[in-house]
Amino acid sequence: MAGKFYSERNLGFLLHEVHEAETLTSIDRFSDQSREVFDLIIDTAGRVAREMLHPLFREMDQKPPRFEDGTIRVHPAIRKFLKESGEGGWIAASASYDHGGGQMPVMLRAAAAFIWGAGNFSAGAYPFLTSGAADLIETFGSDELKHAYLPSMFSGAWQGTMALTEPQAGSSLTDLATVAEPTDQGYYLMKGQKIFISAGDHDAVDNVVHLLLAKIPGGPPGVKGISLFVVPKKRPEAGGLAANDVTTAGVFHKMGYRGCPITHLVFGDAGDCRGYLVGQPHKGLSYMFQMMNEARIGVGMQAASIASAAYFAALEYARERPQGRPITAKDPTSPQVPILRHADIRRLLLFQRSVVEGSLSLLLFCCRLQDLARHGQGDEQKESALLLDLLTPIAKTFPSEMGIQSVSAGLQILGGYGYTEEFPLEQHYRDIRIHPIHEGTTGIQGMDLLGRKVVMENGRAMAVFMTRLAQEIQKAAKDPELAPYGTRLDDARKLLESVTGALVKKAMTGDVEVFLADASLYLELFGLVTIAWQWLVQGRAAKAGLAAG
Amino acid sequence: MAGKFYSERNLGFLLHEVHEAETLTSIDRFSDQSREVFDLIIDTAGRVAREMLHPLFREMDQKPPRFEDGTIRVHPAIRKFLKESGEGGWIAASASYDHGGGQMPVMLRAAAAFIWGAGNFSAGAYPFLTSGAADLIETFGSDELKHAYLPSMFSGAWQGTMALTEPQAGSSLTDLATVAEPTDQGYYLMKGQKIFISAGDHDAVDNVVHLLLAKIPGGPPGVKGISLFVVPKKRPEAGGLAANDVTTAGVFHKMGYRGCPITHLVFGDAGDCRGYLVGQPHKGLSYMFQMMNEARIGVGMQAASIASAAYFAALEYARERPQGRPITAKDPTSPQVPILRHADIRRLLLFQRSVVEGSLSLLLFCCRLQDLARHGQGDEQKESALLLDLLTPIAKTFPSEMGIQSVSAGLQILGGYGYTEEFPLEQHYRDIRIHPIHEGTTGIQGMDLLGRKVVMENGRAMAVFMTRLAQEIQKAAKDPELAPYGTRLDDARKLLESVTGALVKKAMTGDVEVFLADASLYLELFGLVTIAWQWLVQGRAAKAGLAAG
Repeated sequence: MAGKFYSERNLGFLLHEVHEAETLTSIDRFSDQSREVFDLIIDTAGRVAREMLHPLFREMDQKPPRFEDGTIRVHPAIRKFLKESGEGGWIAASASYDHGGGQMPVMLRAAAAFIWGAGNFSAGAYPFLTSGAADLIETFGSDELKHAYLPSMFSGAWQGTMALTEPQAGSSLTDLATVAEPTDQGYYLMKGQKIFISAGDHDAVDNVVHLLLAKIPGGPPGVKGISLFVVPKKRPEAGGLAANDVTTAGVFHKMGYRGCPITHLVFGDAGDCRGYLVGQPHKGLSYMFQMMNEARIGVGMQAASIASAAYFAALEYARERPQGRPITAKDPTSPQVPILRHADIRRLLLFQRSVVEGSLSLLLFCCRLQDLARHGQGDEQKESALLLDLLTPIAKTFPSEMGIQSVSAGLQILGGYGYTEEFPLEQHYRDIRIHPIHEGTTGIQGMDLLGRKVVMENGRAMAVFMTRLAQEIQKAAKDPELAPYGTRLDDARKLLESVTGALVKKAMTGDVEVFLADASLYLELFGLVTIAWQWLVQGRAAKAGLAAG
Repeated sequence: MAGKFYSERNLGFLLHEVHEAETLTSIDRFSDQSREVFDLIIDTAGRVAREMLHPLFREMDQKPPRFEDGTIRVHPAIRKFLKESGEGGWIAASASYDHGGGQMPVMLRAAAAFIWGAGNFSAGAYPFLTSGAADLIETFGSDELKHAYLPSMFSGAWQGTMALTEPQAGSSLTDLATVAEPTDQGYYLMKGQKIFISAGDHDAVDNVVHLLLAKIPGGPPGVKGISLFVVPKKRPEAGGLAANDVTTAGVFHKMGYRGCPITHLVFGDAGDCRGYLVGQPHKGLSYMFQMMNEARIGVGMQAASIASAAYFAALEYARERPQGRPITAKDPTSPQVPILRHADIRRLLLFQRSVVEGSLSLLLFCCRLQDLARHGQGDEQKESALLLDLLTPIAKTFPSEMGIQSVSAGLQILGGYGYTEEFPLEQHYRDIRIHPIHEGTTGIQGMDLLGRKVVMENGRAMAVFMTRLAQEIQKAAKDPELAPYGTRLDDARKLLESVTGALVKKAMTGDVEVFLADASLYLELFGLVTIAWQWLVQGRAAKAGLAAG
């Protein structure tokens, strides 16, 4: 197994030199933070990944969760890891001090998630699922809900989930059928089924808290009638925990992501499943989208982390494996050279690296936008929120789709060995394939980008994006080394502009079906332009760093 | 599990209307054949696939070969299947009457392989591995070898293999280290190791016959000193079989292709492994390349067959799965529609189909070229041989590389379900990933195409190819419906021509490293142009068929 699975140096470069993490400390929320704290977080995350997560990478794949006696049994190390995640403050890292959190920028929490994902994607998923669920309770829940749930979630004793998908609905949230029947006891009686719920039940925690979408009878039809509930597996009662009529119907057997159980859950089979409304009735989807949008960037981050691990595994192999000779070497008895010397192997490695580091740059930038959008002020806050909205489908999709190609390139470098279980590449290849699917498929992201984000507020977000690109291109023009890349990005920018214009024109004629027919391809183009821009930003930062010594 | 895994109609269209299989019967070798015989073969192959192979598709994946007590145990149905393959004349289908064969065009045998591969790729591999090995003995072996080995191989009682790869050599055949020490007994004493040998040992046959590359001491260094041997697991002696000092060291655990054991073999550990020279000493590589080239087209065919099965599984799901509504439907309570109605799903399905049917067309065309190159006459024979040489790396690589993308698109159509073991897509996705690796990686194919095939005989093969394209474009120009596609192909043809010219110029300056640095990308471009050409050929055949009613 490869020893290295991410580059500390690149991560530091992106955090500090490219995306200036330290400047976030000028925001009130983050005023206690400093570069030293950030660096300590990165160091510690790396240690946890090396010592606790990476050693279990293979084993968790080979011994996937088992469904026995109505319970899902996961790898025993998960309990220890979740406890550590709680005690180390990782789960509550970005929560407010008021609720026991660390008020850490999302940017740093995400960097830690990247490191953990690179070490062991399946394991790394558990704590951050809880973070996302807890964040929803913290932001929209009543004080009662916060007191009842946040401490045990933040300590890692309870698992949090996001329970959206239903068997008959899939991506079509309009068709959710889980019902929340009001009672006069302050709770709702839940009835329905959810599928594909990550970490939806397991024996490494004492309780599972579902942030669940359901419909209150009599509400508006479609997505306008969706409400958000806290539905625990066991409800806190009289100082203890009482069963809450949540049944685990089974666990899905999957190609990859095998260390984390994806579950099928039944709510209210016995008529006594209690749910607690979060915020206002019928506003559930907008609440959920806060979590969903962060989860989408989280998915991009996981994909980038797997691609990173695959890159370093392939690089290590390419350095060590002797095979063949330079094309110009005529003597068949001369010693073989490491395959890293072959042009095609270098091409594959550089492709991998361009995906990994380009994705990571965009993702950290989006996390910075999250921090600014939630805790910043004035125009910067507004502009960040707009840009974040626009870039979220790209930050989810580019690392996922191109990450697959990137891991595949790494597998190819190992030849026949890449296809065997002797090396980690085949597992990375299986693991990463989930990312264009969960938290909204690539098709859904394409429609979100083109049908919603590009046209929202008369194209304001798009205008902000185009301005940022133009500014970067202008800066590049002043540097003879970067100028040619700037010119190429400018050509790509113009192409994207003209494609967008042509499509929006189509939408204005009312032919919405045609407008959106190629939304996935539009997303692909948009992603390539965005990553090219991120590479230009990196180029400028690298040159500035070199100039400064 | 999907019921349908290939299209009889499309296969018939490609065989008869596009590539005119029946015209092969004018060649002496095939004069007993007829369209009726061809159709019977296709029908029978379909029945075998449906009744015998497809039902084991999942089970063979879930119960992969086990290495126990020095023996590899495979699924018990393989013995029955190999017997059936022998009795049905499938293994000897293309062999000559003289050796008990059926003198069937390779084109038809390959069509049957396509059907079997679509039904169950791992199972379908066994008999055709034997065919390839037997073909080498038939073509280059002595009468003694033919008598000793062909009957049991053709009957399915013995397995044939191709044993090239060694641990220290991989793709670098120059570095083969297996030694064949001559004796005065008419055999050689073999010593060495081979890895990644498909079906290299298993308990569904009574013997395994390796067509093995090794070096005779004192021969020329590098690939010029490689000789070809028959090395049986058990040697025929005195009417029985005697152990031949071939040890199975293990079986590789793989991501896919799990129904067929890929083995690690040790020859001559006890000093008594006997090998029998095939043909002349030091000519082994050129003999092996006959088999290798056919095997490469076979790999392309297997990839296309998996992509076909994935296409039909995705299509079936898309037809049956209701989810969402047309974009213009405003009423959230209206019934959901099958996802086939969504533009993005159609786009994915059409992409799959364009890969499957485009690949299959090229592959059947290449098989026809094989038949003409081996049994045709005059200019047609020569031109076919040239074109086949040129197109072999493309026929291997396009279906393999694009087949992966195609299967991935199918998996995506199923969303979360595609990632689970409840549907066949995830297995297809794992199975197909081997194809850009075995029988020469994509990198090797790229160098073969650009470094060898394009420039051989002063570019004669390339000239033949370009002429064929130009002819097809001319034909298209006469048809108003096809003309626009012809124009686009002509643009692509010109691009390929100019890229080729620029690269060859680079080679002439002596900068071979740079010339070949992007050979894989050149192969990708060449493949796209080639498949576009095949689609234009299909378009013309379809229009002719429609015109004829």
